[in-house]
Amino acid sequence: METGKWTGLWLDHHRVYESGEAWKIETDGVDSASKVVDNALLEFKRGIAALTGAKVAGEAEDAVTQGLKTLKISLCPAISSEGYHIAGDADGITLEASDDRGILYGVFAILRQVSCGKRTAEVAEDSAPSNPLRMMDHWDNMDGSIERGYSGNSFFFENEQIVINDRTRDYARFMASIGINGVVINNVNVKGAASYLITDRYFDKVRELSEIFDGYGIRLYLSLNFASPIEIGDLKTCDPLDAQVISWWQDKIKEVYDNVPLLGGFLVKADSEGRPGPFTYGRTQADGANMLADVIKPYGGLIIWRCFVYNCTQDWRDTKTDRARAGYDYFKGFDGEYHDNVILQIKNGPMDFQIREPVSPLLGGLQHTNQMLEVQIAQEYTGHQIDLCYLIPLFKEVLDFHTHCGSDKDTVADVVSGRTMGNRNAGMAAVINTGNDANWTGNDLAAANLYGFGRLSFDTELTAEQIAKEWIAQTYNLPGKETEILCNMLLRSREIYEKYTSPLGIGWMVTPATHYGPSVDGYEYSRWGTYHRADHLGIGVDRTDKGTGYAQQYYEENAKMYNGPDTCPEELLLFFHHIPYTRMLKTGKTLIQHIYDSHFEGEEGARGLAADWDSLKSAVPSEVYDRVKERFDLQLDNAREWRDQVNSYFFRKSGIPDEKGRPIY
Amino acid sequence: METGKWTGLWLDHHRVYESGEAWKIETDGVDSASKVVDNALLEFKRGIAALTGAKVAGEAEDAVTQGLKTLKISLCPAISSEGYHIAGDADGITLEASDDRGILYGVFAILRQVSCGKRTAEVAEDSAPSNPLRMMDHWDNMDGSIERGYSGNSFFFENEQIVINDRTRDYARFMASIGINGVVINNVNVKGAASYLITDRYFDKVRELSEIFDGYGIRLYLSLNFASPIEIGDLKTCDPLDAQVISWWQDKIKEVYDNVPLLGGFLVKADSEGRPGPFTYGRTQADGANMLADVIKPYGGLIIWRCFVYNCTQDWRDTKTDRARAGYDYFKGFDGEYHDNVILQIKNGPMDFQIREPVSPLLGGLQHTNQMLEVQIAQEYTGHQIDLCYLIPLFKEVLDFHTHCGSDKDTVADVVSGRTMGNRNAGMAAVINTGNDANWTGNDLAAANLYGFGRLSFDTELTAEQIAKEWIAQTYNLPGKETEILCNMLLRSREIYEKYTSPLGIGWMVTPATHYGPSVDGYEYSRWGTYHRADHLGIGVDRTDKGTGYAQQYYEENAKMYNGPDTCPEELLLFFHHIPYTRMLKTGKTLIQHIYDSHFEGEEGARGLAADWDSLKSAVPSEVYDRVKERFDLQLDNAREWRDQVNSYFFRKSGIPDEKGRPIY
Repeated sequence: METGKWTGLWLDHHRVYESGEAWKIETDGVDSASKVVDNALLEFKRGIAALTGAKVAGEAEDAVTQGLKTLKISLCPAISSEGYHIAGDADGITLEASDDRGILYGVFAILRQVSCGKRTAEVAEDSAPSNPLRMMDHWDNMDGSIERGYSGNSFFFENEQIVINDRTRDYARFMASIGINGVVINNVNVKGAASYLITDRYFDKVRELSEIFDGYGIRLYLSLNFASPIEIGDLKTCDPLDAQVISWWQDKIKEVYDNVPLLGGFLVKADSEGRPGPFTYGRTQADGANMLADVIKPYGGLIIWRCFVYNCTQDWRDTKTDRARAGYDYFKGFDGEYHDNVILQIKNGPMDFQIREPVSPLLGGLQHTNQMLEVQIAQEYTGHQIDLCYLIPLFKEVLDFHTHCGSDKDTVADVVSGRTMGNRNAGMAAVINTGNDANWTGNDLAAANLYGFGRLSFDTELTAEQIAKEWIAQTYNLPGKETEILCNMLLRSREIYEKYTSPLGIGWMVTPATHYGPSVDGYEYSRWGTYHRADHLGIGVDRTDKGTGYAQQYYEENAKMYNGPDTCPEELLLFFHHIPYTRMLKTGKTLIQHIYDSHFEGEEGARGLAADWDSLKSAVPSEVYDRVKERFDLQLDNAREWRDQVNSYFFRKSGIPDEKGRPIY
Repeated sequence: METGKWTGLWLDHHRVYESGEAWKIETDGVDSASKVVDNALLEFKRGIAALTGAKVAGEAEDAVTQGLKTLKISLCPAISSEGYHIAGDADGITLEASDDRGILYGVFAILRQVSCGKRTAEVAEDSAPSNPLRMMDHWDNMDGSIERGYSGNSFFFENEQIVINDRTRDYARFMASIGINGVVINNVNVKGAASYLITDRYFDKVRELSEIFDGYGIRLYLSLNFASPIEIGDLKTCDPLDAQVISWWQDKIKEVYDNVPLLGGFLVKADSEGRPGPFTYGRTQADGANMLADVIKPYGGLIIWRCFVYNCTQDWRDTKTDRARAGYDYFKGFDGEYHDNVILQIKNGPMDFQIREPVSPLLGGLQHTNQMLEVQIAQEYTGHQIDLCYLIPLFKEVLDFHTHCGSDKDTVADVVSGRTMGNRNAGMAAVINTGNDANWTGNDLAAANLYGFGRLSFDTELTAEQIAKEWIAQTYNLPGKETEILCNMLLRSREIYEKYTSPLGIGWMVTPATHYGPSVDGYEYSRWGTYHRADHLGIGVDRTDKGTGYAQQYYEENAKMYNGPDTCPEELLLFFHHIPYTRMLKTGKTLIQHIYDSHFEGEEGARGLAADWDSLKSAVPSEVYDRVKERFDLQLDNAREWRDQVNSYFFRKSGIPDEKGRPIY
């Protein structure tokens, strides 16, 4: 890649066949002034030409060799919001959609199907998004750095300025192509210049960005500083019940919407990890969220309020306080009190994006509150986009989890889609893994998580394998055998990462602050509420009714399951129970032997991934091969360090040797 | 203190009595053009006036009430270099000195004695420095930061410029008053702008600084980048045996001395922690040092070559490689080959300034090589100038250590003073603890280490208690009881710090990178060669003849002593031996019980220090009380964390409970 260039990711449109066709487009009842439709048509023309060598209307007539085909686009009110129906035949393709976004998504669906091997005449799909909101959360700072970014710097911000260029538009295209309809551009930790995004210092650029996004069916959102009345206003308080504060926000939000009418709303991290919030004033999270929601309501805006609130100055000696409990403890009591344009954004697990956690009991635990699932594709704890870790299987597990919330639609997928409660302000959000690296995601293969999250949030019924294959076909257009190899690498990568890192759901055995590489005791004596409580006899946190009681935050069926060491899913055993090293697991191994075996297997698995990648050397572009190969070399070092440090730690602590006599230090 | 002001440290000159006297000064045979003598006279006038209310010549005659006294200064060739003889009587004081520096030191001795309670008529001392070189090494970077600095930023550098102002002169006065005669102004890790200190970018300011220092008997030295021929020249190599490299250095050093004739020479950290050096070219440390020494010899310059060379990318699994061995292994083989103007600068212990280490076997191990002792008063591993840790007792232990090198002058004090080998290029250096904080050392009480190092390097016979009392008298002029309290705090502080941190010489149980606060396994699985090898049965590194063989680097008497667990001094037991937790120590306690007890005692000791400080509240200036009190609050937190984390770590690992049933987690 040349400097200043960037890849087209899955929209690079490899030539899949030579159709010799020409296309024209007919629209019926479609808003001809719609920027979204314009962009959809552009994408079709560009895509079909690149994929099949076809000519498109305007330049088409003279070049017809196989006859002229027609893309017929019309609106159909019977189709669900943002949905589409596509059907190909000998004459072309019919695209019916509910609305402009449906047209755009329909076009991308056509191109995807062709990319994946269908002829245009074979294209067929009825689809509408599973989730009303499908969002990407950027943790980009205005100095250009990215919190937990592993792909270079921000492409939105540089030197406290907003950057808008061709890359911005490509980004919007990519997001639209996977069905994303909301983007938060700035870090949830809003500090310094970012506090001024809601002032005239930045209005022009924010508006310009919101308009570009709007052309791709995407609403722009901002992360908000709850202390704005103090930091950018001249008030001494940001108490959400203070009349002056409310009045300040009313003026401010009016000013914002006067200048940026397309703004979707705000994401707020309050009372969390040092951020200001309503607790400072003895108010509840509901007080804070509802105040802002009332102020923004006239403009149709949303307040997305994060539930990542916990005591981050815990004393490690304190075994009663349990960070895992915090979200439920703080938010459940106000279920039903959050206003209709508030959405609580809940991380998939109760801790923080570990490779294995139980599903947060808040999801479905809240029965009268808009809620949204937050996952992280930025690989903060899952390998920094050095280690291969395809996260879609993890997200699938979360979505498929039965909350037992009393509805027959009781999975997390049901809850966050709004199906359970019949609400519209719901959906899924991901902390995104992009940066200004030429390949967008640092590790080329990490783009599978970017692609995968979008697709999954659009259609939660898709399998991790389907998504992987779609991504591979569109990105690399590999032959069948190579597709199988790469798909299989992706599908087993998460289990491999889990095996060589922390065992059985305990998490956190990671280098503090950076969150890459092992440090078994790194968080054991810290203030972060993240402990494994290992001693010479056993390990794990007792979160049962005899321990912290966290398991009792679930509905009865799940609470019972987690509460018993025999019924608790083994992959979460140490999350819920303190277990002796000598306890026999269901596999017929002792806990300590399981730790040893899984760490040896995990490292071996990483070597298998690297070997598989080597076998693809001639199938993928050489620069892609080289970049990913470099990362596999680092992953092998990482896997070896994890294996040996974790095994040595537990061998030294327990004194129990490995049955197989392998090297432990 | 006002902004931009700074304290006068021990030269604040409290009024100790009202003499009603007046003084005149007579000199005999003294160089009237000497800046050093000028400064000495100024110090006398200023000091005697402030201490006793005396008038001094010029303004004196009219104000005499008790008669006119005379300070008679003359040179006396019989006195050793830089030495002085002072004697007071009814007529005044006689000061005889070997040279200008002797005069300066003699004046400061007079002021010190008066500060400490003597009348001028009682002043009496014969003294000459124990060590030819008495140096302070600053680790100041040219951006103004200080590596391992805990007292603000640099007062030498700011924004890549050299800063010279009134503070510079005060600094020189303080150093002269404690006998320092050499100062390295820049960090041994020479990077970026600092590589250009030997170019015309900085010559003017370096010369100006060297001249100010010279007025106080101080030679300015620079840390040197061994890769200068590459980094600031246009060569492709810095191979010390390459003719072009040698020629480059000849030109460069000539240019430097043409511009900065007063330069003392260079300090070099080569082949260490990522710094370039002769090893890159298959050359020895002697090759590197001798080349530079030959080049600088015509100008009378010294090359001070650090012996801090070790493998900092060790595999923790490797139990054969021992960082402690590295200095001896790399340098001993070339004993006798280092040229006469090379001095090897050797850290007091073989590791890196831990609170307890054995003395480096290189000290005295080298029998035909100039050597210099390096200690650290910057409290990198000893509490960051938050925790009180008076280091003079530690330095005394090092100086008093018998190397058994075969001479009847075989202590470290003998070796580094040059007494053992009869050499002049020898002495002591300290990594300094100053910064641009108004009180110079962050913690006001850390100035005792600054003062103490200078005094001890000048007179290694002084006791830690004498030095502490001198410092207290000059700084705070406290009544007897309060002096005793503060002196006692200082004297017991090192043992207290040792007790609540890592046990029995093992070291390194510290937070990686920052080096403050506990992290028992923080360096256990790292690349730094710093391991404790604790398992469920015991702890310690076997450095005996059955282990890494480090103990055999000492002369036989010491080697035997360290090699046996019964003869090894107990405070170093875990440095030399891997010991079961159940082993009985000489105190009649098991090792594990010793760990528990010492950690409880250490934390209690810290509380005792804080309580003692509270008792001094009305005796010391309130701003001093407040600043130090703030630090004691932090020290108590730190001591508690150390106590609980270390005890919990070993309880969890060994499973052996505390006999006294105290809380362990």
